[in-house]
Amino acid sequence: MSLIVTGSIGIDTVITPTGRADDILGGSCTYFAAAASFFTPVRVVGAVGEDFPDEHVKLMDKFGVDLSGLERRAGSKTFRWTGEYHENMNDRDTLDVQQNVLAEPLPKVPDNFRDSKFVFLANTHPAGQMELLEQFPDAELVVADTMDLWINTALEELKALMKRIDGLVLNDSEAKLLTGESNMVVASGKIVEMGPRFVVIKKGEHGCLLNHTDGIGVLHAYPAANVVDPTGAGDSFAGGMMGYLASDDVKDHLDLAAIKRALAYGTIVASFNIESFSLKRLTEISRHDIDQRLEEYADCVRFD
Amino acid sequence: MSLIVTGSIGIDTVITPTGRADDILGGSCTYFAAAASFFTPVRVVGAVGEDFPDEHVKLMDKFGVDLSGLERRAGSKTFRWTGEYHENMNDRDTLDVQQNVLAEPLPKVPDNFRDSKFVFLANTHPAGQMELLEQFPDAELVVADTMDLWINTALEELKALMKRIDGLVLNDSEAKLLTGESNMVVASGKIVEMGPRFVVIKKGEHGCLLNHTDGIGVLHAYPAANVVDPTGAGDSFAGGMMGYLASDDVKDHLDLAAIKRALAYGTIVASFNIESFSLKRLTEISRHDIDQRLEEYADCVRFD
Repeated sequence: MSLIVTGSIGIDTVITPTGRADDILGGSCTYFAAAASFFTPVRVVGAVGEDFPDEHVKLMDKFGVDLSGLERRAGSKTFRWTGEYHENMNDRDTLDVQQNVLAEPLPKVPDNFRDSKFVFLANTHPAGQMELLEQFPDAELVVADTMDLWINTALEELKALMKRIDGLVLNDSEAKLLTGESNMVVASGKIVEMGPRFVVIKKGEHGCLLNHTDGIGVLHAYPAANVVDPTGAGDSFAGGMMGYLASDDVKDHLDLAAIKRALAYGTIVASFNIESFSLKRLTEISRHDIDQRLEEYADCVRFD
Repeated sequence: MSLIVTGSIGIDTVITPTGRADDILGGSCTYFAAAASFFTPVRVVGAVGEDFPDEHVKLMDKFGVDLSGLERRAGSKTFRWTGEYHENMNDRDTLDVQQNVLAEPLPKVPDNFRDSKFVFLANTHPAGQMELLEQFPDAELVVADTMDLWINTALEELKALMKRIDGLVLNDSEAKLLTGESNMVVASGKIVEMGPRFVVIKKGEHGCLLNHTDGIGVLHAYPAANVVDPTGAGDSFAGGMMGYLASDDVKDHLDLAAIKRALAYGTIVASFNIESFSLKRLTEISRHDIDQRLEEYADCVRFD
């Protein structure tokens, strides 16, 4: 079913211990949409500047996502991020960031997107997320991402949003900041008490923890030996998760078991994503490759 | 079948963000033996000083472990450790350590222990581990623990030992130090190339990774909400693992699936252990409690 995602579409320069890629396609919305496209039709709402290269549009097009909500603004510049990863491939330094079009008013949601049933509110100011949310009256599943900046500067708006969404996705340090709890099981429980039916705490290379009103799920990360560029891992994880939940494979998208399986799909899509810069690796694989690796991963975690 | 463990038996003082316990029973051998005792008969070889309290011997006795290899040395003092945990319950500072009897010659292996089939060489100098190993001619499964100190100061002896053992257990920072690799999948592969049939990389609250000549296993930690004292988590994990492998439940103790299940048992015993200071929580539970929590844990990690 129709899955809509809003968020950043950017031009990245990424430096890793083993390589470097300049002016590649990046952004949370981009990685999310590509990852979700293996499971369900995806609609994108985002804005870029007039400097956005045609080749990047063509790359997004390869995933068959509906780009009718992509605004290319005359006189504006695209969001740009330059980052360098440490030797451990987990920690990174942001060397340069230019908000550009992201600092301008939000892009419009096309009328034909208003019937979207699955909504992912990528990380932005929670008041903006709320504004977006209200444009999807038929939404059946709404999941939001957030970050430390909003926990620190817009906590009341975030709390109001949490009462309106089904799921929240954030990383472990953000979960600690939001709840004051170091123990992620306790922290996740407190977050569920704040409103959402479930919360997914992302722990990077250490996997993720799900706290759902019906129970808890934990997933170790896929044991990836080949990490070229971790950029977009969290976004492609969320994209795989939401794409699967919006797919015809799932009957009850709020069911604990379905969400756990969705997290496993997210884990697998993210594991492919980090095998190359930008979306390159995702252009080379099919749903069949994802299912095959999911089976292999299931074998790794099985102990019966 | 007969499982033997050698290592430290000590008197700990532990300070955590929520409490403090003075002069409690500790030591790697102690935690290991108690954890393993739920699965199989356990033999202990270790030395303490004349200051070792009777109540600590009684506590070890509760687990039905064979203490005929426990030397209480006149004129010696017991190993003592004082540590304080940070607010995250993972990092800790050693405030005081007194080697005492651990700096003296190794305790003797009683003759009636020489037919031991399952041998766990707890963390000590690899030359000492090798010396011990040679006293068990009938050993069917030998697993060793090690640490950064020996990687830095006794690498050749450690490498020689690795060619003689079936399994190695170490933590992630030690695996990186040993191989120069930050990626634990790659690091674990390099360790297996150095000799052992399998390696278990412990990642604390993040679970563990198994690399075995037949495949890879990954386990997220048990989602523990109630952490009172993490001391002994790694030792009780190893004890649960080895105890299960030595038990009658296992037909082929080098089989990948059996070792994965053993790691799950280790995870569960460790999750009980951290719910109190010293061995207190382990005195309160039975094999039935362990199996029950294992099922609950299996539900958490299942995604099919």
